[in-house]
Amino acid sequence: MDHSAYGSWRNIATDDAVSLSFGFPDPDLFPEDKLHTSLKTVLADEGDDALQYGGGDYQESLTSFLKEQERERGIDFETHELLVTNGATDAIDTVCRAFLEPGDTLIVEKPTFMGVLGVFRNFGVNIVGVPVDDDGMDVEALADLLETRQTAGQESPKLLYTIPDFHNPTGTTLSRERRERLLELATEYEFGILEDGAYSDLWLDEQAPPPIATLDTSERVIRVGSFAKTVAPGIRMGWLTAPSKIRTAARSVASGGTNTLIEGVLGKYCEAGYFDDLLPEIRETYRAKRDHMLAELDRQMPADVTWTDPTGGFFIWVELPEGIDSQSMLEPAAETGVTYLPGPLFYPDDGGSNSLRLSFTYVKQDEITAGIKALAESIETAR
Amino acid sequence: MDHSAYGSWRNIATDDAVSLSFGFPDPDLFPEDKLHTSLKTVLADEGDDALQYGGGDYQESLTSFLKEQERERGIDFETHELLVTNGATDAIDTVCRAFLEPGDTLIVEKPTFMGVLGVFRNFGVNIVGVPVDDDGMDVEALADLLETRQTAGQESPKLLYTIPDFHNPTGTTLSRERRERLLELATEYEFGILEDGAYSDLWLDEQAPPPIATLDTSERVIRVGSFAKTVAPGIRMGWLTAPSKIRTAARSVASGGTNTLIEGVLGKYCEAGYFDDLLPEIRETYRAKRDHMLAELDRQMPADVTWTDPTGGFFIWVELPEGIDSQSMLEPAAETGVTYLPGPLFYPDDGGSNSLRLSFTYVKQDEITAGIKALAESIETAR
Repeated sequence: MDHSAYGSWRNIATDDAVSLSFGFPDPDLFPEDKLHTSLKTVLADEGDDALQYGGGDYQESLTSFLKEQERERGIDFETHELLVTNGATDAIDTVCRAFLEPGDTLIVEKPTFMGVLGVFRNFGVNIVGVPVDDDGMDVEALADLLETRQTAGQESPKLLYTIPDFHNPTGTTLSRERRERLLELATEYEFGILEDGAYSDLWLDEQAPPPIATLDTSERVIRVGSFAKTVAPGIRMGWLTAPSKIRTAARSVASGGTNTLIEGVLGKYCEAGYFDDLLPEIRETYRAKRDHMLAELDRQMPADVTWTDPTGGFFIWVELPEGIDSQSMLEPAAETGVTYLPGPLFYPDDGGSNSLRLSFTYVKQDEITAGIKALAESIETAR
Repeated sequence: MDHSAYGSWRNIATDDAVSLSFGFPDPDLFPEDKLHTSLKTVLADEGDDALQYGGGDYQESLTSFLKEQERERGIDFETHELLVTNGATDAIDTVCRAFLEPGDTLIVEKPTFMGVLGVFRNFGVNIVGVPVDDDGMDVEALADLLETRQTAGQESPKLLYTIPDFHNPTGTTLSRERRERLLELATEYEFGILEDGAYSDLWLDEQAPPPIATLDTSERVIRVGSFAKTVAPGIRMGWLTAPSKIRTAARSVASGGTNTLIEGVLGKYCEAGYFDDLLPEIRETYRAKRDHMLAELDRQMPADVTWTDPTGGFFIWVELPEGIDSQSMLEPAAETGVTYLPGPLFYPDDGGSNSLRLSFTYVKQDEITAGIKALAESIETAR
């Protein structure tokens, strides 16, 4: 995550304004007691191993759980392997290290997760965006882009990064048909796909279509996962599943190892069933908050404002009336009582100026009501 | 750490052989209860913050403690800043990302920490070694090397990596005079210094001379520290202190953030005085083990074997009689009852074939006795 950029936006938040800015989980859902119990168990059972340099049963325990989860999603561990990482961003960074060189072209959705744009920029790559609509990335726009590039004698992109399930920042989900078409294009133009599944477990109405990784027969998809939204961000743990040879390449550039104590804690946590137990409550909480935010948008927004209708994840994407700039509107909005993240933060190019992202997970329902009210007022004032 | 290489050597260890191979702390010193108490405290006091994305008092708490420690060593936080990292290797990796480009020349001690060689190699740099004697890196050999390179029209090195205190793998400590000379050379030839202080707290007889970073007046030294040897490796936490502009550059390429829960735990741990309380016991334990290993070497080694006399740290470096190859000897030695790490692992070039590293921290005293006996036998057999 590009913390410096993140930090500067964070400072906009004031004590008086409702923060709809950040993709923070609801802290009331943090499983403090269960983490505490799990730490106690791992220290008692395997403390000498879990506190030592890597290696021991506690690591197997977490890996087994994750593999079983990924297997249920359709990943084949005859051909794939799993690597535990210091969070999903670390997994993405590791993939970049293994496969990208300065000057390579990388395709992303526009808009896309702002944190990952910072990571990609560190690698000196050329980032090209493809628009998103209600069914996720517009794969025909991608096809056109690829063909145009090829005709112009430009190299094929090296990698495509996508968040197909409950996309950050738009909340949209890539349709099954588009997943298949995306793989066709990847095969034709020979690029890899980095599939970010950070929100996959957080379906609120129904599960997303199968991960792109499970439809892939040509060993070109790496899937990334995270515990940040299903346990807590602060435990800083994620993973990647990839075809074995890719996982080996990623492993060889991963530096410094993982937090074996937290691996041990999470192993016990998952083994005890806490992970699975908590998901229904998380979904119920976020479903209610999403429904509430959508209802408030419906009730309070001016008629010429539109927004997405996410079936999962953390975010709603709002398109403002023509000519209203989400960046200029932020400061007055904060004074009126709400903060959000302006659209341009999520664009690899200069797009997004009249859009913004709202997060419905962090704040309470009455704050959502007040926040949307302040947003509606700010839009009217900005006209 | 280059885990794949580490893993393959690890496999040499058998249940029957005494492992003098790895730089593992004594697990009897792991502060399970104190970590447990600290977790309980941070979850109770600041759980919502410590489990969320970064930011909160718990982070201040750890940073304040570390700054106070570094200040006592002589670091000036008017001109320097501190960055918490996912362990020392992550700190080193971050520095490489910020400052190295493929083809750059990097100077290291030969021998040096094998794990870091793997990190450096990931960056495609040209690694050049400078010999070590009883007073640490031979800085006059370095001066000659720099002059020769300059005369030959080669670029100055970009960075010099050193472990001046209780060096891994030799256990030697860079003298005060050499620290000053090293800085002179760095200023003359305009390279940065990456000072690895992973063992600085583990003085057994007396403290090492002041860190190079505290003698530096030209903003070219980055100092790295770690909790791996003073708390436990499994908590995977370290830091770097650097002149502010360097710290800013490092910060901007650090990816994915740190483990805020463990930062919180360690903040409480250090605040409660546990860190300072444990150090005397750690030193006493390792002093006894080191003394025992030195006595056993004295008692059991053939007359033509020599070894270093460390005043701190984890390691003793052994030079075998001419013509005995430490790599070929490893498998028979493991069968005889001891494992170690062969010298070549620690060399950036093809040196080290008749040397090896022993770690005195992990095993018990009677195992040290048995291990040195098996080593003496293996040497005799290898003649």
